[in-house]
Amino acid sequence: MMKASRSVWLFTLGNEVVQGRVVNTNASYLGRRLTLLGFEVWGNISLVDDVSLVTEFLKYVMNRKPALIVTTGGLGPTYDDRTLEAVAKAAGLKLVLNEEALKMVREKYSEKGFELTEDRVKMAYLPEGGIPIPNSVGTAPGCWLEVSGTVIVSLPGVPRELEAMWENWVEPRLRKLLPEIHVEEYMFRVIGVPESSVAPIVKRILKIYDNVYIKTHPKGHEIKAPILDVYVMAVSGNSEEARRTVNEVVARLTSELKGLGGHVEDSLTRNKAE
Amino acid sequence: MMKASRSVWLFTLGNEVVQGRVVNTNASYLGRRLTLLGFEVWGNISLVDDVSLVTEFLKYVMNRKPALIVTTGGLGPTYDDRTLEAVAKAAGLKLVLNEEALKMVREKYSEKGFELTEDRVKMAYLPEGGIPIPNSVGTAPGCWLEVSGTVIVSLPGVPRELEAMWENWVEPRLRKLLPEIHVEEYMFRVIGVPESSVAPIVKRILKIYDNVYIKTHPKGHEIKAPILDVYVMAVSGNSEEARRTVNEVVARLTSELKGLGGHVEDSLTRNKAE
Repeated sequence: MMKASRSVWLFTLGNEVVQGRVVNTNASYLGRRLTLLGFEVWGNISLVDDVSLVTEFLKYVMNRKPALIVTTGGLGPTYDDRTLEAVAKAAGLKLVLNEEALKMVREKYSEKGFELTEDRVKMAYLPEGGIPIPNSVGTAPGCWLEVSGTVIVSLPGVPRELEAMWENWVEPRLRKLLPEIHVEEYMFRVIGVPESSVAPIVKRILKIYDNVYIKTHPKGHEIKAPILDVYVMAVSGNSEEARRTVNEVVARLTSELKGLGGHVEDSLTRNKAE
Repeated sequence: MMKASRSVWLFTLGNEVVQGRVVNTNASYLGRRLTLLGFEVWGNISLVDDVSLVTEFLKYVMNRKPALIVTTGGLGPTYDDRTLEAVAKAAGLKLVLNEEALKMVREKYSEKGFELTEDRVKMAYLPEGGIPIPNSVGTAPGCWLEVSGTVIVSLPGVPRELEAMWENWVEPRLRKLLPEIHVEEYMFRVIGVPESSVAPIVKRILKIYDNVYIKTHPKGHEIKAPILDVYVMAVSGNSEEARRTVNEVVARLTSELKGLGGHVEDSLTRNKAE
C-alpha cells in the first residue's frame, strides 16, 4: 500500500537528457500532473545510462521513504536500457522473466512475423513482484512495483508512450490510492514593481497561511522595466477552502502591489486538479 | 585548480522546475554546452526550494569529487532564494557580504535611485572565497567558488541572464582550465529497421572502440513503421582522430543497416566543439 505521505521523486534517465540533446519534457509533464493530483514532488534526478550510478541514487532516494518514485527511460531493447536492472538492485530484488510482460512483447512482434530475439525478450524482465504496464503505443512494457511502502513506477522515455501509459493506466491507479486533495492556483502579472520590493510583502503574507505557496517570476528587467508573474497555490482537503484561500491571498497581494504603484494584469492561468 | 577529471553535475533548482510549471531548458542548455566543451555531465538534480534538502544533495555530490558543479536558480531577492546559503553550508564555509558583489548590486539600483534594502543587499552575500560573476542582464551576481578541487559555479535561473553570464564569463574561464579535447558527433536516420534489430549491431561495434558512444532514438513505431535516429559521438585529444573514428563507425553502421533492408537518410546534425 502507498504511504499517507505524498512525496514523490522523479528519475528521468538517459545520456541524451543529461547531455542536453533533448529538452526534458518528461520531467515537466510528470511534475505538473503529479502536483495537480496533490502529490509533493521533491526532486527530479537525471542520470547518464550507468546502471551502478542509477542504482546508487535510487537507493539513496528510497532511504528517504517517499510515497512514489517514477523513472523514465531505459526500458527498450538496447545495451544501455538497464533501468529495471537498477530498480531491482536498489530494491534488493531479482530481475526475472515476467510471463505477462513476455506475452505483451510476443504479441507485438508476432503480429508482423518477427521472432523473439534475446534483445526483445530482455524487455519482459521485471523486478520480482513487478506488475507490467501495457504500452499501447510502443513495445516495451512499463513496471509497477511496491517496495516497503514506496511505489516505483517505471515508464519508457519516449514521450508519447509515457504519456499514454500515464493517462490510461498509472494515473487512474494512483487516484485510487491517494486521499482526496485539492490544489488551487492562480497567476497574475504585475508591471512596474521590482521583485526585491515584492519580496517583503510575500514574506509577510506567507507567515499568515501555512497551506499557501507564492513564487515571483521576473520576466522583464528588475530595475529598468520590472515585470513579474506572481504564482499563488493553495492545497487543501476541501476544494472550497483552497479556492477561498487563493482568492484571499491574491486580493491581499494585488492591493499591496497597487499601493506600490504596480499595474496588475488579469489572470494568466487558473487551473484546478479534478 | 580544477581537477583533471572532467565530470560535472548540474543542480537546476526551484519549485517551478520540479513541479513542471516551466520546462527545464537551463539543464539542456548547460548539458549541451558542457558536453561540446569536452566535459562529462553525469547528472542533473532538480530540487524544490528547501535549503536543507539542497545542502544535503550538494554534499552528497561533492563527496564524489567532480571537477565542476553548476547550480541554477535561487540567487534573487526573495525569501526562497537561498542557493548560496546551501552552497556555503555544503562546503563548510560562512556566507559573507562580498564587497565586489555589493558594488555590483548597488550600482544597478542606484542608477534608478532605488535604495539598498535588506532584500537587495542579500544578493551580495557569497560563500567565503567566492568570486562574484557579473550579471549584465539582471541584478543578482553569480558566484564562482573553488572547494577542495571542485569548482562550484552558481548562476541565476532566468535563462537569458544565465546564458549571457555563461557565454561571457564562465565558459571562457573554463576553457582555460581544461585540457584540450575534441568532441565529434553525427546523427543519421534509418527507416525500416526495428530498434531491437539494431541493438546487437551497436553492441558489437562498441566493443571495438573505447572512445565512442552510440545511441538509438526511436521516432516511429518499433514494429509497424520503424524510424530510428542514430547518434554517434567520439571524444579524443586529437580532432582529426575524433572525426576519423566517427566516420568509420558511421560507415560500419550504415552498411550493416542497409544489409537489413534499412533506408539511411542523410546527416541530421554534425556539430563540433571549437
